[in-house]
Amino acid sequence: MKFNEVLKNLSTYEAGKPIELVVREYGIDPKEVVKLASNENPYGTSPKVVAKIETLAKNMYLYPDDSMFELKEALANKFKLESKNVIIGSGSDQILEFCIHAKCKDKSNVLMAKTTFAMYEIYAKQVGANIIKTESSQHNLKEFSDLYKKHGADVIFLCIPNNPLGECLDKDEVYDFLKTIDEDTLVVVDGAYQEYASFKDEKKRICPKDLIEKFPNTVYLGTFSKAYALGGMRVGYGLAKEEIISTFYKIRAPFNITTLSLAAAIEALKDEEFVKDCIEKNFIEMKRYEKYCQDNGFEYIPSYTNFITILLKNFISKTVAQKLLEKGMIVRDLTGYGLNAIRITIGTNEQNTKLFKLLDEVLEELK
Amino acid sequence: MKFNEVLKNLSTYEAGKPIELVVREYGIDPKEVVKLASNENPYGTSPKVVAKIETLAKNMYLYPDDSMFELKEALANKFKLESKNVIIGSGSDQILEFCIHAKCKDKSNVLMAKTTFAMYEIYAKQVGANIIKTESSQHNLKEFSDLYKKHGADVIFLCIPNNPLGECLDKDEVYDFLKTIDEDTLVVVDGAYQEYASFKDEKKRICPKDLIEKFPNTVYLGTFSKAYALGGMRVGYGLAKEEIISTFYKIRAPFNITTLSLAAAIEALKDEEFVKDCIEKNFIEMKRYEKYCQDNGFEYIPSYTNFITILLKNFISKTVAQKLLEKGMIVRDLTGYGLNAIRITIGTNEQNTKLFKLLDEVLEELK
Repeated sequence: MKFNEVLKNLSTYEAGKPIELVVREYGIDPKEVVKLASNENPYGTSPKVVAKIETLAKNMYLYPDDSMFELKEALANKFKLESKNVIIGSGSDQILEFCIHAKCKDKSNVLMAKTTFAMYEIYAKQVGANIIKTESSQHNLKEFSDLYKKHGADVIFLCIPNNPLGECLDKDEVYDFLKTIDEDTLVVVDGAYQEYASFKDEKKRICPKDLIEKFPNTVYLGTFSKAYALGGMRVGYGLAKEEIISTFYKIRAPFNITTLSLAAAIEALKDEEFVKDCIEKNFIEMKRYEKYCQDNGFEYIPSYTNFITILLKNFISKTVAQKLLEKGMIVRDLTGYGLNAIRITIGTNEQNTKLFKLLDEVLEELK
Repeated sequence: MKFNEVLKNLSTYEAGKPIELVVREYGIDPKEVVKLASNENPYGTSPKVVAKIETLAKNMYLYPDDSMFELKEALANKFKLESKNVIIGSGSDQILEFCIHAKCKDKSNVLMAKTTFAMYEIYAKQVGANIIKTESSQHNLKEFSDLYKKHGADVIFLCIPNNPLGECLDKDEVYDFLKTIDEDTLVVVDGAYQEYASFKDEKKRICPKDLIEKFPNTVYLGTFSKAYALGGMRVGYGLAKEEIISTFYKIRAPFNITTLSLAAAIEALKDEEFVKDCIEKNFIEMKRYEKYCQDNGFEYIPSYTNFITILLKNFISKTVAQKLLEKGMIVRDLTGYGLNAIRITIGTNEQNTKLFKLLDEVLEELK
């Protein structure tokens, strides 16, 4: 059977390996497996949210309220916007897809950093768009500007802070850049890890309301998968001017999140204390990683997220990640991103202690 | 901002109204609202599945096993296929999207019955495809053949049994039709309600393994939303030859179902007894609807599903549905499908008794 031409050149996203796979392939007791590969919140879901879902599990047979009235209201209140400025996605991933499908087709130009969230490129290629990347791995707005002047773009992706590297642009430099962008170019400000960045450094904070009011061609993306500890429930959101949101609604399929996901997200927004507590712990533990790297002479990228990327020199990242996997420790090898590096989610105190111990062992074995 | 041209002519899916809306808009106690509008399983989710999800709610922070190893194995076993013949979607809806994106682009031809599942047309229009519909509302394979000979088609949708009408093609006539279709045309056999149809009449049963082996250009769709009572969890599946499934994988975004959805679907497959029991009750209750229609002189379409479509003559369906809504009874008005008809999900014994009582009241008021 013949399929669309554009599918020929598609690559698929390589997800972090699940615990189930390590159990299956290496016969390790699931209790012994530690996953620091997908930037989940290691402190688990808020107990209040878990309790709510336990009481609502019996409603699984019912379709969700597809208007998502309550969740949109709650997000609108949080960000001092209106419901018409909000759309909910199956993860903020799905909003990326809406952005591409709204603006791009065959031969559209999509601009992004060399090393950034892989789904930007995957979604863009699905409609046959040209991918234009900066030369630098990390976000460099000078290079973005030069490429934009040269090629133009239908969509620009800014990942603030950037996954999988962890660096973060300042709000002011982002605004200076946005002033130079044509109003017909959609600029996606992916704030999946903004809760972390803005906690660490106020200069990094992007206020969605201010952003979309100053720059009506932007869309701000947020997620419940990271700080809000609902990675498994697939809920993200897009915030933008009504004109953009109403267009995205034309692309959205009905019932794009589950009944329990909707309830969990609503409940998670009521427990901001939990989120704050997790973020505080994250940066306390981050310091241990920084010290570990310094003690071992590893170069790392200062991170504004809940993960840290360590650049390796005398070891091959793929081998290190594989050896750790065989010991039940899952981290992300970044070879697929063209880097000899590993990305480690900042875990709990106990998980991180275990990571340091196992990484010591692996490096000793590889010497 | 300019968006893709193709979005201009898009309509959005009108979902069944949720209970929450009736509570909000008419101030009715949620306990008093009965929803017979979205063909959910009125007997609720299997208690075994509910219990499983209660114990797993604490895992909401973890991404699902994106290989979906266990669920694909379970489905492969059920249908005597291999895992490579299975893909999981966020509802079988999402597999429809994969079919369109794999085969269609601007000006592709997509063939379907005049009155059938609305998402076929919505997804096809999103890529700019031409919609070709039979003249008859119900599936008429003679008309399908004539249109196919005249226009050809990249994708053909057969809804067996058909939503929202309830009629069902015989397996033999489907096979005779498929023999005449070119191997490069993808034929989608949507079996969302097959569990009901094949229980009622063995002649309607489509065996996915037999189907895809005899006709390698077909894809069979199934869902956990109806008989398996997981409408709110968004899990469906596609079964096809590996060549088709592997192409769909290029389009599928990672983590397209939730951690709890994955677990719920795996558990639901272990409780086939529950499913059988629900289907038996469904057809006992269906007889009450048939008798109600006969007693009141209403024309209805004999149904092979968990809903019944009543064709109105002396009443306007939109008014009837609205009046029922104001009394806390949600049914689906089919005006949007070009029919003066209402579609009612077959509820529990108690729900149906209430429906008959309220419908009597409404018809009396409208006389």
